[in-house]
Amino acid sequence: MFANTFGTHLRLTTFGESHGPAMGAVIDGMPAGVAIDLATHIQPSLNRRRPGQSAITTARNEADAAEILSGVFDGKTLGTPICVVVRNTNARSSDYRPDYYRPGHADRTWQEKFGHRDHRGGGRASGRETLARVIGGAFAARLLPPQTRVVAFTRQIGEHRALDVPGDLSTELIDRHPTRCPDLAVAERISQELLECKARGDSRGGIIELHILNCPIGLGEPVFAKLKARLADAMMGIGAVVGVSLGDGFHDATTCGIDFHTGIDGQGPAAGISPAAQGIQGGISNGEPITLRVAFKPASTIGSMAREGRHDPCIVPRAVPVVEAMANLVLADLLLARRLNQLP
Amino acid sequence: MFANTFGTHLRLTTFGESHGPAMGAVIDGMPAGVAIDLATHIQPSLNRRRPGQSAITTARNEADAAEILSGVFDGKTLGTPICVVVRNTNARSSDYRPDYYRPGHADRTWQEKFGHRDHRGGGRASGRETLARVIGGAFAARLLPPQTRVVAFTRQIGEHRALDVPGDLSTELIDRHPTRCPDLAVAERISQELLECKARGDSRGGIIELHILNCPIGLGEPVFAKLKARLADAMMGIGAVVGVSLGDGFHDATTCGIDFHTGIDGQGPAAGISPAAQGIQGGISNGEPITLRVAFKPASTIGSMAREGRHDPCIVPRAVPVVEAMANLVLADLLLARRLNQLP
Amino acid sequence: MFANTFGTHLRLTTFGESHGPAMGAVIDGMPAGVAIDLATHIQPSLNRRRPGQSAITTARNEADAAEILSGVFDGKTLGTPICVVVRNTNARSSDYRPDYYRPGHADRTWQEKFGHRDHRGGGRASGRETLARVIGGAFAARLLPPQTRVVAFTRQIGEHRALDVPGDLSTELIDRHPTRCPDLAVAERISQELLECKARGDSRGGIIELHILNCPIGLGEPVFAKLKARLADAMMGIGAVVGVSLGDGFHDATTCGIDFHTGIDGQGPAAGISPAAQGIQGGISNGEPITLRVAFKPASTIGSMAREGRHDPCIVPRAVPVVEAMANLVLADLLLARRLNQLP
Amino acid sequence: MFANTFGTHLRLTTFGESHGPAMGAVIDGMPAGVAIDLATHIQPSLNRRRPGQSAITTARNEADAAEILSGVFDGKTLGTPICVVVRNTNARSSDYRPDYYRPGHADRTWQEKFGHRDHRGGGRASGRETLARVIGGAFAARLLPPQTRVVAFTRQIGEHRALDVPGDLSTELIDRHPTRCPDLAVAERISQELLECKARGDSRGGIIELHILNCPIGLGEPVFAKLKARLADAMMGIGAVVGVSLGDGFHDATTCGIDFHTGIDGQGPAAGISPAAQGIQGGISNGEPITLRVAFKPASTIGSMAREGRHDPCIVPRAVPVVEAMANLVLADLLLARRLNQLP
Repeated sequence: MFANTFGTHLRLTTFGESHGPAMGAVIDGMPAGVAIDLATHIQPSLNRRRPGQSAITTARNEADAAEILSGVFDGKTLGTPICVVVRNTNARSSDYRPDYYRPGHADRTWQEKFGHRDHRGGGRASGRETLARVIGGAFAARLLPPQTRVVAFTRQIGEHRALDVPGDLSTELIDRHPTRCPDLAVAERISQELLECKARGDSRGGIIELHILNCPIGLGEPVFAKLKARLADAMMGIGAVVGVSLGDGFHDATTCGIDFHTGIDGQGPAAGISPAAQGIQGGISNGEPITLRVAFKPASTIGSMAREGRHDPCIVPRAVPVVEAMANLVLADLLLARRLNQLP
Repeated sequence: MFANTFGTHLRLTTFGESHGPAMGAVIDGMPAGVAIDLATHIQPSLNRRRPGQSAITTARNEADAAEILSGVFDGKTLGTPICVVVRNTNARSSDYRPDYYRPGHADRTWQEKFGHRDHRGGGRASGRETLARVIGGAFAARLLPPQTRVVAFTRQIGEHRALDVPGDLSTELIDRHPTRCPDLAVAERISQELLECKARGDSRGGIIELHILNCPIGLGEPVFAKLKARLADAMMGIGAVVGVSLGDGFHDATTCGIDFHTGIDGQGPAAGISPAAQGIQGGISNGEPITLRVAFKPASTIGSMAREGRHDPCIVPRAVPVVEAMANLVLADLLLARRLNQLP
Repeated sequence: MFANTFGTHLRLTTFGESHGPAMGAVIDGMPAGVAIDLATHIQPSLNRRRPGQSAITTARNEADAAEILSGVFDGKTLGTPICVVVRNTNARSSDYRPDYYRPGHADRTWQEKFGHRDHRGGGRASGRETLARVIGGAFAARLLPPQTRVVAFTRQIGEHRALDVPGDLSTELIDRHPTRCPDLAVAERISQELLECKARGDSRGGIIELHILNCPIGLGEPVFAKLKARLADAMMGIGAVVGVSLGDGFHDATTCGIDFHTGIDGQGPAAGISPAAQGIQGGISNGEPITLRVAFKPASTIGSMAREGRHDPCIVPRAVPVVEAMANLVLADLLLARRLNQLP
Repeated sequence: MFANTFGTHLRLTTFGESHGPAMGAVIDGMPAGVAIDLATHIQPSLNRRRPGQSAITTARNEADAAEILSGVFDGKTLGTPICVVVRNTNARSSDYRPDYYRPGHADRTWQEKFGHRDHRGGGRASGRETLARVIGGAFAARLLPPQTRVVAFTRQIGEHRALDVPGDLSTELIDRHPTRCPDLAVAERISQELLECKARGDSRGGIIELHILNCPIGLGEPVFAKLKARLADAMMGIGAVVGVSLGDGFHDATTCGIDFHTGIDGQGPAAGISPAAQGIQGGISNGEPITLRVAFKPASTIGSMAREGRHDPCIVPRAVPVVEAMANLVLADLLLARRLNQLP
């Protein structure tokens, strides 16, 4: 649980302050021999997260160009630590005051905890730190089997909830609209609302839904490192997240066991597999689809600062690739852990 | 995230299979000099979790008597690892078949993952493992300041939701009723429903609410080990948990920022502290009350096995001390971590 | 480097104070499906270390009977944590005074560090703790390929040095003499000297030599977890050890490169393999024999206490199985680590 | 023991291949508020290690200019991860062939372990990696009390051994001569020998001695993380190191206890402190001076490659700051660990 490192076997360490020289990531534990191309596998994920993509995101304009400093040679991983850095180029530090704690932000608690902080743009508590997670997730994704799909999308922003969601989601489909809501009618209403929010200094939260399809069987370790626990830890480690559920967990908690646990068979090829288990039984993946819901509170910058500054009225669309990245990190880490479970 | 160890500085390792010789815990990282008395500090927590407490819990009757094997001398911790064991005495292994995967349980995924399992009573995947967490939590609680209160209770079982909950909750108050629901009228309805459930082989889930009052300021580490992430990890590591939220997180996700972030002040002693932040800003505790909701799915044993076997129709009441234990472990671990944040 | 846990993938946690209720070990990370029999695989190693074996060891008489509490079922490991305990039965605590720091022992530094200690028999700083390492090593040995041989023996005690050492060492051969010196003529002289030492309250140190034959290729991780570094850490973690060298490292340091690096070939099947490398190049095993020397200082209990108390005049013979155990733990841990180096 | 990370509380992760874009370090766990100036505290240590310093070192000419990318603001550490990078500028990759395993080097074992390697200049197995350790050590040193002195020097190269060593060693004194041997007469003979070695393609090893004066009391954790074990691990993790001893451990192993343990007193202020204990009792520092000897084998590059290439005929002089850096890292890590031993 070290502060800046995520994962046990595949370990992502992130570094960097929002207005410092650079953000970056060290990925250690990556096996050797994995084909990696910066332009194909890493930069596209960063571009999905980067600011300045549309009218509904912050105007801070960062190219977020990644450079690999180590660990990759001749297009393949070396089994050594991979360091990737992204320079900060468009910081506007004068927007921030050292003697002012922005309401609802990390400013005060970090100041009290460390006695010293980089007040410029939230320093390391800035959402900008998540670009390093996206880099880590892009490497992690390279370890997953090709048939495994990890796709997140905007299920809800404010009171607008996507209903018409295709079964066969893809990044392309989700990125058709800047809100990353695949129900285009709802997406338009969200877009409209966010523009109004921005104009009047308001903000919105929402719910991101994550689908994991064809998850390798056997991911998750007994007792404390259950797959669901690792996913919850990963998601709650994202700034504005205030809730995580497997499927519609808070609703399921109110149902009868006889209704909930239907369709379970004690015999045959699917013996013991529960359709209601959201792909995880005893903490371990059973190969069935996994759905995770991640709730974000409304962004903390409101009022005049929101109207005048460079802020997202809602971080949910840009958080979609971050949610995917964290899921990829969890799955890849547990995939490595699985190599240690049995005698070869 | 090692499978059987929880925590970084205060580390709980649990061991034991449900029908093996014993369950146990090793607590390492406990500072020296902490006064500990088995009868006063440890056994009472175990008694709250133990089976056979009332008509609405399993009939397996275990004394759950703990023995301290190491790490405590002369009534105080030595700073060395503390091992505590509880012998299994009332196992009825003939209830379980090695060739049968109980639907909805861990049987099949564990078998596939390890290729070998103790099928008796779920082996290590049994809820009985949580007694070791309760032991760990009891030690962890000894590290928290006396004014810090960590109290969990049954907020909801099935559709029955406690409404009349006193502000000043205590263990005594919560344990007045075997359901651990402090709204006694609702508690009675729950009790009635669980007896009916048991009779017809049905089961129920529910929601446990955790209150942390007077939490020390500065708990939670930046980025990945945020207090909320550690709590989510801790709770989702409990068997039947399917959701975790800070306060009513899934509802908060639908609100406007202007409504949500009210009452925040940029000046004065509370400058920057957000009433809506549920006591955690930037991942770090700010001293305000923390509320966590933990959703449990209905228990997996239904039908004839539920009618005839020794199972709880709803594990929520017995999970209350487990939720508290996990919270205590998180808080104590982060309290130790906080000692490393600044120069002395 | 946590205080009481050794290893990363295969993790041994030891617990117990010398005069407390029990000593014990938790072994976690052991893959499932490994055949284990207490009487065959564990107890014999403990018997080699246990006190009261001969006139040259302490008179404390402990059966050191191990009990497995968890993690093994039906003769095979479950992939869950294995807890093994050994009760303390023959402690004589009245020999020790809380207000007296035994010269040369851990008493004073532990007291200052923890502010509270179990003064009876050295508490946890007692050499008795190493029985838990022997247990751990016995499990670790089960993970090594059958052709791998890990054998330690007494190379030197005081000024008596074994010269006539058979090339094909085995436990049986080494245990022919209670000194564990395979050169029987020297062994007799050592034995005589230790009896004299004991009589006059003197003590001796010595050198244990460890041979690893048919070591799996590829053990050791780059940079910090080099095989030699892990072995050095393991050995220097034993109480009285004051030096470790690969082969005769301190002599090799004085030689010319041209003499030292002879017989190396840049071509053919052995291309790049150095005979002088002691089986480790770039920190990684190359399959050639490894020799490690471990220096022990003279035991600290001298004078009247040594004459009257229950102490070994030289711990080297009983440390032989401890050195082997630590080596087994290192090798097994790195063998698991190796599973993560490349794509499968 | 993760491959590329050293330390538990203060964690140094190094990255970079010798001929890749850059070498670097991430230091995490550094408390906030530590004053750091690149030019004053970091660069001088790097300059001591850098190549091209004199006729007896490699001709590779690297400025080794460090850049801090994160974790330091306004001249003080933030408590966040510190990333420091050094660009590689003077690599001559054509000297190395992918299909050739340099005898005695890491080439072959790394190739077999990872199946893919950066053959240029040894890739990550190059001694150039140690510059990142020097960076880490420079930060670690900032955590030690000002009166603590960590000084290493060349005690011996080949058969030339420093005899006339001043009691009050300092960096200035040691750096008076490029051999880092403080006995100037011996230093001159070493220098002469190394020039001859280089001319005929020979190489030398040697012994570095490390003195730790005024070590804080209470460093070292019981059982596995003893101070001496951590130091041994640290030193044996350096490329060419083949032996480590506390004082003259291999000699001490041959002495009588009565001679060795002289001058110990059971009473008074120094009760229980052993002059022979080399400052460490029960694995924990007692405040007395610590001496560590570190043996290096002769450098592996000999013959024509040594005559023509850019190699050090003896790495000992340049390894002196690396030995100090590793010691600083161990001490600072254990100093942080000590904060967790007792109740505050």
